Amino acid sequence: MFKKMKRAAAMMAALIMIEGQVIMAGAEDKTHVDMIAHGRYVVTMDDARGVVEFGAVAVKDGAIVAVGTAAEITATYSADDILAGENRVLMPGMVNGHTHSAMVLFRGMADDLDLMTWLTKYIFPMEGRYVDPDFIAVGSELACWEMIRGGTTSFVDMYFYPDVIAGVVDKCGLRAVITAPMIDFPSPGFKGWEDSYAAGVKFVEDWQGKHPRITPGLAPHAPYTVSKEHLSQVAAKAKELGAPISIHIAEDQAEVKKIAAEQGMTSIELMAETGLLDVTTVAAHVVWPTDSDMKALAGAPVGAIHNPTSNLKTAAGIAPIPQMLEAGVKVGLGTDGAASNNDLDMWEEMRLAALLNKGKQNDPTVVPASAALKMATSGGAEAVGLGDVTGALKPGMKADMIQVSLDSLRLAPLYDVMSHLVYAAGSHDVVTTVVEGKVLMRDGKMLTIDEDALRARVEAVAEKIRADLAKTE
Amino acid sequence: MFKKMKRAAAMMAALIMIEGQVIMAGAEDKTHVDMIAHGRYVVTMDDARGVVEFGAVAVKDGAIVAVGTAAEITATYSADDILAGENRVLMPGMVNGHTHSAMVLFRGMADDLDLMTWLTKYIFPMEGRYVDPDFIAVGSELACWEMIRGGTTSFVDMYFYPDVIAGVVDKCGLRAVITAPMIDFPSPGFKGWEDSYAAGVKFVEDWQGKHPRITPGLAPHAPYTVSKEHLSQVAAKAKELGAPISIHIAEDQAEVKKIAAEQGMTSIELMAETGLLDVTTVAAHVVWPTDSDMKALAGAPVGAIHNPTSNLKTAAGIAPIPQMLEAGVKVGLGTDGAASNNDLDMWEEMRLAALLNKGKQNDPTVVPASAALKMATSGGAEAVGLGDVTGALKPGMKADMIQVSLDSLRLAPLYDVMSHLVYAAGSHDVVTTVVEGKVLMRDGKMLTIDEDALRARVEAVAEKIRADLAKTE
Repeated sequence: MFKKMKRAAAMMAALIMIEGQVIMAGAEDKTHVDMIAHGRYVVTMDDARGVVEFGAVAVKDGAIVAVGTAAEITATYSADDILAGENRVLMPGMVNGHTHSAMVLFRGMADDLDLMTWLTKYIFPMEGRYVDPDFIAVGSELACWEMIRGGTTSFVDMYFYPDVIAGVVDKCGLRAVITAPMIDFPSPGFKGWEDSYAAGVKFVEDWQGKHPRITPGLAPHAPYTVSKEHLSQVAAKAKELGAPISIHIAEDQAEVKKIAAEQGMTSIELMAETGLLDVTTVAAHVVWPTDSDMKALAGAPVGAIHNPTSNLKTAAGIAPIPQMLEAGVKVGLGTDGAASNNDLDMWEEMRLAALLNKGKQNDPTVVPASAALKMATSGGAEAVGLGDVTGALKPGMKADMIQVSLDSLRLAPLYDVMSHLVYAAGSHDVVTTVVEGKVLMRDGKMLTIDEDALRARVEAVAEKIRADLAKTE
Repeated sequence: MFKKMKRAAAMMAALIMIEGQVIMAGAEDKTHVDMIAHGRYVVTMDDARGVVEFGAVAVKDGAIVAVGTAAEITATYSADDILAGENRVLMPGMVNGHTHSAMVLFRGMADDLDLMTWLTKYIFPMEGRYVDPDFIAVGSELACWEMIRGGTTSFVDMYFYPDVIAGVVDKCGLRAVITAPMIDFPSPGFKGWEDSYAAGVKFVEDWQGKHPRITPGLAPHAPYTVSKEHLSQVAAKAKELGAPISIHIAEDQAEVKKIAAEQGMTSIELMAETGLLDVTTVAAHVVWPTDSDMKALAGAPVGAIHNPTSNLKTAAGIAPIPQMLEAGVKVGLGTDGAASNNDLDMWEEMRLAALLNKGKQNDPTVVPASAALKMATSGGAEAVGLGDVTGALKPGMKADMIQVSLDSLRLAPLYDVMSHLVYAAGSHDVVTTVVEGKVLMRDGKMLTIDEDALRARVEAVAEKIRADLAKTE
């Protein structure tokens, strides 16, 4: 009763206006928080709240404490930092479920090639020559720049020198599941399975529970590059450690045929047999699941990450997203590495996911805008094991959120905000990016990355690669 | 001989530098032009010139007079207007081969619906209630804004009140083939075929040869909405007038089946029989051509316009682009109307054309970046009958060109400029748009459109539609 009266008094105080100015006399009755973020449309991705027009979110200690109309929030809370939301959408940051972040340094190096030429003439030799801790530091920071700029607030990474990646993520302010690559063959820094496995386990032990925004994990590369025994070994270790796994799985027909011939089963059945369906696994691609594979995935703590651009560019195929969603599989979206994309733009993936599946299924009603937006946010968070942490604007979740400007005439007129987010807006419309309550980009200005210094470091790496490419061609 | 000496002298004069300043004493020896536009990379789309690094283009009286290195051009020409090109790509403006421009006012009004619901519950009723000359004036200007902003310099339009569209195109400064819609059924302003046909012919007669940037044409809607006799009538009239035609053709399976059942032939065979392959016809979609259809198209003055976003969104299918190119069909790209896209962004179409066909054909080498860029520029210009006018930077062509900034870190590092244009850049990277030598957008600033006034007019239309939608749902 007292609480209700207090709230009513606070609302009255806040609503008394003289010439447009709120009288601050009522402020002492309000709960003080760190930040109030506004939106002309607050797209919560929380089924209970939906889209709140003229809404706001109150943030304290990095977490969301309240979501409501601006009138409700400002009546109850006061804050030092106000993110104004006029003509902006406030929504959860996006979750990039699968990438190899530092590969942005290879973007546009080699396109439009068959897989073996691409891998053996370009990617593997260039990785062998250039991937070292400095390359990873520069490439990961460039990737973080692009993700912050485009409104991605969480990502699942699978690339070399994960401890270097973790350092960059710490500094730039994003949230990440960083998984250490393990492979049966020589790779940057490793002779083969034994040392890459050992280093991966050490990485998890070093980082687990140490950083609020970083979840370390293990990344056996794929079922065609890691033996069945080693898959079982890493699944058991992940279970023991309580760490997530990321892996490429059921990506193309070459893999499907190889696993069928060698193991007499599908790649998803191999996951089941080796224990990979018993732990939190981020299954990248899943282009070729059978019906029974989908059932198995739906019943497991596993997410399938749809990478539509990469799957088209490498001609892997088109994943059966409507069928997976129907079967109850947790589906997220990813960009894959920039060498097969060639950027880390989740807006393009979201749009393409909505479009591509309509074309494939010959049905314009599948993967509507709301479903695509869910895969990029709350659904993606669930798929990568962060469903309780990020991907929706609701009390208790971390304050990972972005503001999208509606100022461009390209977004006029507006009838349906969800439609515009999926079919017309893009990464360039993102103006503010917040992770765990900290503003990483404000009104288009980057706050945690020195762009000029980064550009110089990128150029220094690129100059060497350019000279090398000139010799290759 | 004299010319050679003069040129050598001019070059020497231009190259004498004191502390970085070119001595202007040699300027009187130079040929004066209206504009010199520079580019760190000049992507000419002219096979003879390819990409010129540190290049420039000289422009006089709206046409290109020379293309070369900046050193060559500045040694030979002087100009009042210099478009600086540091860290910019200079390239031909894009050609949007198929759109219904004013439908931008319906963007996001209705998505993710089956075709009949979309048409009969939303598009047709809304067109019936709102499409009038004012709607067209506002919508066409919004479309021109978006095209200028995104680097499209020419477009083929098919929508109501073409004389109003022509007025807007005149004012905004773009180049357009504006085709007057004709249909056997009632449509905005018309009872049926007779009056829509008569008005279309009158539109061509009124505008033909009258405006340097506007080509009027005739638009029989589609083979399933215009009878065979009427198709023959309009083909004969187009031949008599020397006017182009645009038509929707072979778009989806429903059409394929209907034409097969009623006419016993394919839609392309129907074009041949009615004379539509004997005139300049812009054939929109062509998703379902047979092998012999492709041969027929290749031998005709007809272009096929690939609209990948629209064809996915409406679930029409995926056009066999590699096969059409192989057969010698002139292929361009289009956005279709914003009601099935939901924007007029040719960068998205270009990228999607490159990606989608790889996925469909299971071959990552088809439609490489260079082929996608060609469809968006020189190939598209040929497909719409403007191949001698626009789409490439070479002497004699009109100066329809754009500058694309490479400043964003999203475009770093750069190994291959063609790759970045197709796989990483976007409409937001376009900074300057020039049509027939006139600057329509300079360094991001619109010069022919009052954005605030346009926004207000768009809102006025949208408010009425919004109120109407609220009743519909």
